[in-house]
Amino acid sequence: MNIKLYSAWYCPFAQRTWIALEMLGLDYTYIEIDPYDKTEHWMEISRGKGQVPVVEFSDGKANRVRVPDSIRSLEFLNDLAAGQFWNNAPTLRADQRYWLDHINGWIVPQFYRFLKAPVGSAQSQESRTALSEGLASLETATVGRGSAIDAKHPGMLDVALFPFAYRMNLLLPYYKSFRPLAHASSLGDWFGEMCRSEDVRATSAQVEYYDDQLLQFYEPYAAGGGQEDVTTIAN
Amino acid sequence: MNIKLYSAWYCPFAQRTWIALEMLGLDYTYIEIDPYDKTEHWMEISRGKGQVPVVEFSDGKANRVRVPDSIRSLEFLNDLAAGQFWNNAPTLRADQRYWLDHINGWIVPQFYRFLKAPVGSAQSQESRTALSEGLASLETATVGRGSAIDAKHPGMLDVALFPFAYRMNLLLPYYKSFRPLAHASSLGDWFGEMCRSEDVRATSAQVEYYDDQLLQFYEPYAAGGGQEDVTTIAN
Repeated sequence: MNIKLYSAWYCPFAQRTWIALEMLGLDYTYIEIDPYDKTEHWMEISRGKGQVPVVEFSDGKANRVRVPDSIRSLEFLNDLAAGQFWNNAPTLRADQRYWLDHINGWIVPQFYRFLKAPVGSAQSQESRTALSEGLASLETATVGRGSAIDAKHPGMLDVALFPFAYRMNLLLPYYKSFRPLAHASSLGDWFGEMCRSEDVRATSAQVEYYDDQLLQFYEPYAAGGGQEDVTTIAN
Repeated sequence: MNIKLYSAWYCPFAQRTWIALEMLGLDYTYIEIDPYDKTEHWMEISRGKGQVPVVEFSDGKANRVRVPDSIRSLEFLNDLAAGQFWNNAPTLRADQRYWLDHINGWIVPQFYRFLKAPVGSAQSQESRTALSEGLASLETATVGRGSAIDAKHPGMLDVALFPFAYRMNLLLPYYKSFRPLAHASSLGDWFGEMCRSEDVRATSAQVEYYDDQLLQFYEPYAAGGGQEDVTTIAN
């Protein structure tokens, strides 16, 4: 069994897949890629998308596949490892998917909108409120349910949210005076516990001065630059 | 077990869910909704989205859920019925998901772009080509694989594609001189067989003069009107 992860160290989407590989206990080779360098080789590997993460898999026999997209790769790796990222009850699994779409279609774009908005602007105010409300609704609607985020039994939602929660907590207080998550709250407790997980730590340990590097990497975004497409809100 | 389908008779997204309910042999109540009439009741049922389909489920005990979104409802209903919409092999299932994203992120928006583009315009030319190539790549890349469209063993891709294939074949030749699918080709054969399926036919039988009504319903779209958001192409 041969798994390759094409990733960029700073990318929260790629970190999702990386965390999943660790949590599921799969052997893999990490390959650092500059996704913006659209070489022929990279476009072929990423199936024309030019985005990290991509998971490449072969069992040496007939089974081969290249999986671009972070959620699709999470689903694939979970299937491959017969993992527990989904709840077994159909209604709770549907709930997990609903909140997964909420993370991807609301929380993630509002995070980027807030990060890019000039301090004091109307967009800053709106996206700060939208982000806070998006996090609060995830927290309250799923609390005590088998579909909730749960650092003790991490699943699809925990892995999908964490890399963005980490960047929120690092970048937004520094650049935008956002109150960090790590206060007494179930989301704050979840965040602290996820940060202490060995599987999560393995995905940041290879980069020296990780937080400093991230702060530096995202500086152009915090000044309003960077890509626009990550700020698009789903229906 | 209590399943309600909130649907609009003309909507291809809702028809996906409707076909799935028939194929999976589930009991359900069909409820016709005008999704554009954003009443408080409808916004609550659709969880603030105001779009069909929504599946509402309750087993009379603790398990209740409302599932908006056509693909999410297909996944939920398949889980509920322990259905065979996904291939069991992880690599083939990942392939199914890849082509599902291709249908949703490429074929569907190109269909709407082509339907809305004025005949003879550059957008008409581009979207016609993009749609044809999108269909051809689905056909050739999956042929002979367990992830392919297959009317004899319909799964996620068949149910996701069919309502759009039906509208392509009805509306595009009439309004845009597009060559219909139903020629000698594996896609054409698939289309013919899907059309003859009792489960598929059950989802159009309640509307008299179904094809005429559809042609009439989509006339404003064919003249360039209707909603814009369905033409957005995924990354």
